[in-house]
Amino acid sequence: MTKRKIVLAFSGGLDTSYALVDFREKGWDVVTANIDTGGLHSGEAEVVKARAEELGAVEHHVVDARAELYDRVITYAIKANYLRNGAYPSCVGAERLIQAEKVVQVALEVGADAVAHGSTGAGADHVRYDAVIRALAPHLEIVTPIRDERLTREGETEFLRSRGYEVSEKVKLYSINEGLIGTSIGGEETYGSWEYLPESAWTYTKPIDEAPEKGVELLISFEKGEVVSAVTAAGDALPNENNYDILSALNVLGGEHGVGRGIHMGSTMVGNLARVGFEAPGMLILIAAHRELEKLVLSNRQQSTKATLGNTYGDLLHEAVYFDPIMDDFRAFLDSSQTRVTGTVRVLLHKGNIVLLGSRSPHSLLDAATRSGVVYGHGSSLWTGEQARAFAHMYSVPGAILRAAAEPAE
Amino acid sequence: MTKRKIVLAFSGGLDTSYALVDFREKGWDVVTANIDTGGLHSGEAEVVKARAEELGAVEHHVVDARAELYDRVITYAIKANYLRNGAYPSCVGAERLIQAEKVVQVALEVGADAVAHGSTGAGADHVRYDAVIRALAPHLEIVTPIRDERLTREGETEFLRSRGYEVSEKVKLYSINEGLIGTSIGGEETYGSWEYLPESAWTYTKPIDEAPEKGVELLISFEKGEVVSAVTAAGDALPNENNYDILSALNVLGGEHGVGRGIHMGSTMVGNLARVGFEAPGMLILIAAHRELEKLVLSNRQQSTKATLGNTYGDLLHEAVYFDPIMDDFRAFLDSSQTRVTGTVRVLLHKGNIVLLGSRSPHSLLDAATRSGVVYGHGSSLWTGEQARAFAHMYSVPGAILRAAAEPAE
Amino acid sequence: MTKRKIVLAFSGGLDTSYALVDFREKGWDVVTANIDTGGLHSGEAEVVKARAEELGAVEHHVVDARAELYDRVITYAIKANYLRNGAYPSCVGAERLIQAEKVVQVALEVGADAVAHGSTGAGADHVRYDAVIRALAPHLEIVTPIRDERLTREGETEFLRSRGYEVSEKVKLYSINEGLIGTSIGGEETYGSWEYLPESAWTYTKPIDEAPEKGVELLISFEKGEVVSAVTAAGDALPNENNYDILSALNVLGGEHGVGRGIHMGSTMVGNLARVGFEAPGMLILIAAHRELEKLVLSNRQQSTKATLGNTYGDLLHEAVYFDPIMDDFRAFLDSSQTRVTGTVRVLLHKGNIVLLGSRSPHSLLDAATRSGVVYGHGSSLWTGEQARAFAHMYSVPGAILRAAAEPAE
Amino acid sequence: MTKRKIVLAFSGGLDTSYALVDFREKGWDVVTANIDTGGLHSGEAEVVKARAEELGAVEHHVVDARAELYDRVITYAIKANYLRNGAYPSCVGAERLIQAEKVVQVALEVGADAVAHGSTGAGADHVRYDAVIRALAPHLEIVTPIRDERLTREGETEFLRSRGYEVSEKVKLYSINEGLIGTSIGGEETYGSWEYLPESAWTYTKPIDEAPEKGVELLISFEKGEVVSAVTAAGDALPNENNYDILSALNVLGGEHGVGRGIHMGSTMVGNLARVGFEAPGMLILIAAHRELEKLVLSNRQQSTKATLGNTYGDLLHEAVYFDPIMDDFRAFLDSSQTRVTGTVRVLLHKGNIVLLGSRSPHSLLDAATRSGVVYGHGSSLWTGEQARAFAHMYSVPGAILRAAAEPAE
Repeated sequence: MTKRKIVLAFSGGLDTSYALVDFREKGWDVVTANIDTGGLHSGEAEVVKARAEELGAVEHHVVDARAELYDRVITYAIKANYLRNGAYPSCVGAERLIQAEKVVQVALEVGADAVAHGSTGAGADHVRYDAVIRALAPHLEIVTPIRDERLTREGETEFLRSRGYEVSEKVKLYSINEGLIGTSIGGEETYGSWEYLPESAWTYTKPIDEAPEKGVELLISFEKGEVVSAVTAAGDALPNENNYDILSALNVLGGEHGVGRGIHMGSTMVGNLARVGFEAPGMLILIAAHRELEKLVLSNRQQSTKATLGNTYGDLLHEAVYFDPIMDDFRAFLDSSQTRVTGTVRVLLHKGNIVLLGSRSPHSLLDAATRSGVVYGHGSSLWTGEQARAFAHMYSVPGAILRAAAEPAE
Repeated sequence: MTKRKIVLAFSGGLDTSYALVDFREKGWDVVTANIDTGGLHSGEAEVVKARAEELGAVEHHVVDARAELYDRVITYAIKANYLRNGAYPSCVGAERLIQAEKVVQVALEVGADAVAHGSTGAGADHVRYDAVIRALAPHLEIVTPIRDERLTREGETEFLRSRGYEVSEKVKLYSINEGLIGTSIGGEETYGSWEYLPESAWTYTKPIDEAPEKGVELLISFEKGEVVSAVTAAGDALPNENNYDILSALNVLGGEHGVGRGIHMGSTMVGNLARVGFEAPGMLILIAAHRELEKLVLSNRQQSTKATLGNTYGDLLHEAVYFDPIMDDFRAFLDSSQTRVTGTVRVLLHKGNIVLLGSRSPHSLLDAATRSGVVYGHGSSLWTGEQARAFAHMYSVPGAILRAAAEPAE
Repeated sequence: MTKRKIVLAFSGGLDTSYALVDFREKGWDVVTANIDTGGLHSGEAEVVKARAEELGAVEHHVVDARAELYDRVITYAIKANYLRNGAYPSCVGAERLIQAEKVVQVALEVGADAVAHGSTGAGADHVRYDAVIRALAPHLEIVTPIRDERLTREGETEFLRSRGYEVSEKVKLYSINEGLIGTSIGGEETYGSWEYLPESAWTYTKPIDEAPEKGVELLISFEKGEVVSAVTAAGDALPNENNYDILSALNVLGGEHGVGRGIHMGSTMVGNLARVGFEAPGMLILIAAHRELEKLVLSNRQQSTKATLGNTYGDLLHEAVYFDPIMDDFRAFLDSSQTRVTGTVRVLLHKGNIVLLGSRSPHSLLDAATRSGVVYGHGSSLWTGEQARAFAHMYSVPGAILRAAAEPAE
Repeated sequence: MTKRKIVLAFSGGLDTSYALVDFREKGWDVVTANIDTGGLHSGEAEVVKARAEELGAVEHHVVDARAELYDRVITYAIKANYLRNGAYPSCVGAERLIQAEKVVQVALEVGADAVAHGSTGAGADHVRYDAVIRALAPHLEIVTPIRDERLTREGETEFLRSRGYEVSEKVKLYSINEGLIGTSIGGEETYGSWEYLPESAWTYTKPIDEAPEKGVELLISFEKGEVVSAVTAAGDALPNENNYDILSALNVLGGEHGVGRGIHMGSTMVGNLARVGFEAPGMLILIAAHRELEKLVLSNRQQSTKATLGNTYGDLLHEAVYFDPIMDDFRAFLDSSQTRVTGTVRVLLHKGNIVLLGSRSPHSLLDAATRSGVVYGHGSSLWTGEQARAFAHMYSVPGAILRAAAEPAE
């Protein structure tokens, strides 16, 4: 009789190491899948693979999902100027959805009977995983020991050691999650609302004090809302081979100038408030630059409607509303809105600040008005003083009527 | 026969000086009204008064509108976290409405036949003035020579000198408008979109380079969404006698730390794009702190609905939609939303950055969840692993159905 | 040892009859609570009480919640013009919330250890009940055998008969739920989307064919958005002793004229689509009349903002989002918006149609404009032809600039 | 020297007849353009042409704009379910925009120097015309004697008669505007808010009394949100050669059954309230059917977002915001949202009522849920009682926390 096969989303950490061995002992053939959404440091993929093999995986898959994450999630986050609660480039949520998709894909490829992930039931990640799996492959069993059995790290360690596997002694003070979009940092200070993360908790961004005295100026160019190049004022182009290279490079460059730190506080999908530190220089820079360009080329109505819809879009994605066709409709709106978002933005990174120096575009509304005769600050040949006066008169009519109606007629 | 009486909004500048003399020559009794919305430096009121008398005003009124501007406009801008186009604390627009109201008030007091203002027809201020005057006192004639006759500064200067009045030779490179909410700065660079304002154009905020190496930490407290105190970590309370004192003090303190500069680019009421520099440290600090406190105490739905409504409210005010009863409805919503917005926010001002260090409130949702058994980062006693699993299952149902409906049934 | 006490929301139907006996056998003292939200016919309360006593309740409480349902839910549904999916006066959802509140109130009064309700797990009512109970009295155990054990009607019948209790043989073809807001009707036809309910399924509204040839004209008056009287053109005032009397009377009168039938199709809280027939003449008439009056007195911005917020408010209530403070904020907005909604609407009920004949109000914008000089259809003394021409000119500027910017500048 | 050429939007009525002769006398070569947006009765085009020639037009153009009006405006009004103020299929506004476009097109074709239209300055039509002309052909002069000179009908009549032209004696009691979308009717009763239009004022719809005792049932089918066929239950297909044929046929059929009358009351672009009767059976039927189908196939989020955006879209179009690129973005959203809006709706037209009997679609969410195991009214195999209970538990967490935070912690 053939053994049943399970695909396990595997990071090499304690939880998923425990799960791998546990599944094996329960009679599963375990296939491990390591999905790279930008958090793997060089060489780490090999370490994870070796661990999977050591612990008895029958197959190990590595999936590089960075380009797809960038294409399907990040470009729309930028088009939408999405910052959760106005501040947080939503690091973790969207990555989970792509990871879950990739795990399902592996499961379908290897003909698995089940998929497993190591999420706890405390946060929202387990909901994201399940939502994707159920919709894409409702026939697959979902196995989640960490959530269902509420295992402790001590229990897992003991279990693994009793089977002869080594477990690192290192106790991590901060829970770190690294990805292309950003790094999230949780720890004692973020469990309450009053304390700030100490300098030691941040992973790669510099404090303002240590950032260079002189900032760096960048020219960031967009075509239809997508970043196509970033060049320093000195003429050095940032790498741009993979679609996500500029973002990665801006994470490093921004971090050096003290840009990108923050603490996010917001409701989770399960209804409680959560607080978490983050480092996300690249996304913050790109969104700031993109929004500045939009101010130059979009109508006021486009900007305000986009702000509302884009926020809803980002929030829904964060909440794993992934298969509602409204998401396609929002993307259609966003894509349409970017038709004219082509141009270049001058950005200065300096001591934690992202200073928007200027922008230009072939679709500049400032230039179009000038071509039509409006010169801001110098008057306009598009209308006369009498026309301006008449406009003010007409513009005041609705308010005057509404005011007159305030007092009841006798 | 008694002469007809006109009330002129008078700043002592060239335009309104010209108007005063011109009106007098045309047979009006001219009453000047100088409305202080925070832009007057100490002693300047006297200078303006002397000029009015010199030029022949029959009466001169000084109206201190700062407390009212704060109470009726600024508190709601903070409650709404309003930043025009996500960046600009809308300095000038709202001030004009209050100024127009006060001018009308003077006109009704002195029994005037007409009111006059010196706005040009190029921007939106003339519309704001007219909208308020027509609604509040439709019987008053509106006289606006600068708009209607499109006079030049040269012509006005010549006119005044020919009557024996002195006119300053000083040519201002930048057009500056100062008020409690902020200072706006227009000049050659802001007429296009590519250039940044030079260091010399800014009026009182320090550049990042010259800001102190060490930042200043503040504890800013709110009650039902209104600022009630601001104290440095060293224990120094900012002045708090008049309702606008903390804002004024934060303008100074923030400016010293390089906080508060920006360039706004956005559509005007007359439909063209405008770009203008601004310095508004106080509003930016207060809004940032207020929003942080809201994250601790408001539901997610409150925050996102407030963001949309607050933005609409601010935009409408900017566009002089002052007498539409929707404005009362928005304020009722905003007031209600602030019921729990009581608490203290820790803010660091440092080298241009406003760093939100932490916050606390008796209505903290983080604390309420803890009291109810949720401990973020440590799991929760509010639900079991099985309940979490079941929730994820149920949460996935709508997406699974929507996905199933994507393919047409045969 | 004292027995533990449970309060059971009791309707006298099969499910709750079963529960009562089952609880008793399991050792509970069972207190029954019968909450009247408008669905009890005359005399039925006594029947329910007798049944509770027969089945062994230690106490039976009757709570008349109609006035409170009207005051806290219905008035806001009318102020919001709320129709779920644009059609359905959301009969059942809001009633459950009030019922749950009242059951909790009884439980707190009698010092109960638990509360029980007979909802199944198939719909959304069980979520509404639990949401209210957990928030108001988290210490109370929630007991729900019908949901948890998925009992069948056959099993329940057998259980009761085996204990010597009679159970009616009558098999109901349609599941009917009656309340002040309306009557909902589910049955074979509504399980799919294609069939309409047959004539026999409707409970009290007349088909169009049988409605009188001559309609009835009503004058419905509102004060600050609340109905204060309804009088026929013949001068007969509808009863108006209790706050809900006019609504009840309109249910009857509307039903006679064929008004009020519909089939609602919409998403449930648990994510599947549901379809259900309804009869709700009173709510449909009042909302239609109220909205007509609003058109006369509210600004366009008020109407469109209200439409969006009111819809969100109603949807959230339907989804049991009852304790989110956003609900207070919405009510504050709605209350403010009704300041001028005072006046009278002429309505004709005729053969299924609600025809809005006319309206008047001391805050009429039509009259205010007339007083200000606008005469629709006859021109206006508020502006001249030249002013109108200048306005059209200025109004065209933004579009002309946006159009000019469409083609990229070279 | 060649004469300057002007294109006049010409209906054959008094205003434009006057304008034609007046222009000619002022030395223009007058080209008349008669734009058919569905309001021309058979043979009338010839009458208009003859009149143009009689009055001295050098050329007369007839442009059939019905297919384009349907394609560019009406299909989106249906996709958006747009009813102004929830009731009015916005008859006149959008037609003007298309008419203005066509007049500009003629002007460009004939190389005109100017365009002229006969709008008064009292309503909003003159703004619509000007907005289109300025954006599309800013070099063209706009000539509008009726608006600018505020001519009276008496003066125009006298002018024409003095030149030997006949003018009909007939005084029209009601101002009627006919088009594909609907017919608008203004008159004495609609100048106030209290009176209803008398039977004589309506042009082709039957009163409820005279509508047939037996209604007619239709099967209306849509593909991606566009109407593709309409067939009576008896099997008779409505004409469907031109894209607007079904709409036209439904105007007739609906009108016979007393469907389609209403009185609209809403703010105009110039800020005053207007009231106008309308007959628009076809649009009301198609929008009702379309919305019913959407309930079957769209997610709840799609429906509510569409309702808000669709309303904004329609209002902006009504207000001549025609060249703002937001309009393209809205259309992209609407088009995307229609991907699944394919299916058939059963509609009964009966004594003024549009009764939605049922609907079906290959993308039916009801069917998809059934395929997935949900059976509304019969329980569900998609979840167990325990899962339902756990869901209710988890769903109640946010409300319980928000409630707990209401009381300040000490």
